[in-house]
Amino acid sequence: MLLRHGESEWNAKGLFTGWVDAGLSAKGEEEARRGGKLLIEAGVRPDVVHTSLLTRAIQTANLALGVADLLWLPVTRSWRLNERHYGALQGKDKAQTRAEFGDEQFMLWRRSYDVPPPPIADDDEFSQVGEARYGHMPSELVPRTECLKDVVQRMLPYWYDRIVPDLAAGRTVLVAAHGNSLRALVKHLDGIGDDEIAGLNIPTGIPLVYELDDDFHPVAAGGRYLDPDAAAAAIEAVANQGR
Amino acid sequence: MLLRHGESEWNAKGLFTGWVDAGLSAKGEEEARRGGKLLIEAGVRPDVVHTSLLTRAIQTANLALGVADLLWLPVTRSWRLNERHYGALQGKDKAQTRAEFGDEQFMLWRRSYDVPPPPIADDDEFSQVGEARYGHMPSELVPRTECLKDVVQRMLPYWYDRIVPDLAAGRTVLVAAHGNSLRALVKHLDGIGDDEIAGLNIPTGIPLVYELDDDFHPVAAGGRYLDPDAAAAAIEAVANQGR
Repeated sequence: MLLRHGESEWNAKGLFTGWVDAGLSAKGEEEARRGGKLLIEAGVRPDVVHTSLLTRAIQTANLALGVADLLWLPVTRSWRLNERHYGALQGKDKAQTRAEFGDEQFMLWRRSYDVPPPPIADDDEFSQVGEARYGHMPSELVPRTECLKDVVQRMLPYWYDRIVPDLAAGRTVLVAAHGNSLRALVKHLDGIGDDEIAGLNIPTGIPLVYELDDDFHPVAAGGRYLDPDAAAAAIEAVANQGR
Repeated sequence: MLLRHGESEWNAKGLFTGWVDAGLSAKGEEEARRGGKLLIEAGVRPDVVHTSLLTRAIQTANLALGVADLLWLPVTRSWRLNERHYGALQGKDKAQTRAEFGDEQFMLWRRSYDVPPPPIADDDEFSQVGEARYGHMPSELVPRTECLKDVVQRMLPYWYDRIVPDLAAGRTVLVAAHGNSLRALVKHLDGIGDDEIAGLNIPTGIPLVYELDDDFHPVAAGGRYLDPDAAAAAIEAVANQGR
């Protein structure tokens, strides 16, 4: 079961966030609580929780689980579920970046599969090198920039080594993470091609449930949103934004 | 570092709580946030967190860590850190229980080291037998009642097997738990006798820091509260209550 965090304070301000640790906005907190209500209504109970190391995903999990009376679930966190690192764009205004670099370059950075933004300097105020949160990692493992392909590569080991063993033990797993780390996971699960993934958007705060076969592949491609109408409306809204 | 949860909704109502999963009151939430501020002010940063399986301890940890920008810390939860199980008294009004059974019996149940209250029936609405939260445990392991001695016995394996290895790896550990599970731990750490432990009270929401030697014993008996004046006042207030 996948849960994308709700609106963050930086989403609301129109800034590139990536690994910058923005908290949820009031609207994002409400989205997270709605996610918890959807779990109750659907009678779906996770047995274990996996989150990224970023506050907005952890808050989303905590708020949803609080509503569902499931704060006691075991939880594991990893940088491998973090949002895509946006490189030198982190902390920059999206509209300003678009004006400065032009539509084509802007869309390439946002939506291409394998073109990362320029790397961020280690002494940039929005670099994560040296943060205590990543102190358990060798510095070379902390990204300076990422394209979606990079996210797939660093996320998959966590899927195979940490999540699949939970599934193999018969557990229902909740993954609370981000737009791009979840797109990377869905790309893998549904076998979406490198050229097609740009069109995939995962709405915030609506649990997306995959039932998996014995080989950990989806029984039904695309899974099932716990609020399909709200999910369809959110996906449609994003599609229209792009036009 | 030990952190006792703040006031719960059931504390506020004067009910025996034990393993019943009451959430924090608004005052309890404020106490938890104060705990987080004290961590920041003291410049103390835990590396890992251990909590009980009860919501009020988990909420306390989440609120304190949220304030201190430490939600990303790895966390492990266990029933072995739960509050003392109050047996058939769970869900009962404290004042009414005192009136019904008399001062002597009431104080014996509350403060004796080895006299548990009568066991709770498995079909009592305040029994935890059969709760999903304890579904990973054989039913015989779920307490029907406990005295403090029982709490020491079921808490110590967690100290030795899960917390000490973290300490041995050089990590600073935060334990978010309950009045009696923390009294049990402090009894062990400070070598307090069975007859003396009744006099020990741990204030809510004020982190209590122990520095430990190479053999995991306290360098200074009693540890150090991050807000010693508030802790002393809270301990004094409880002592006066008893008179």
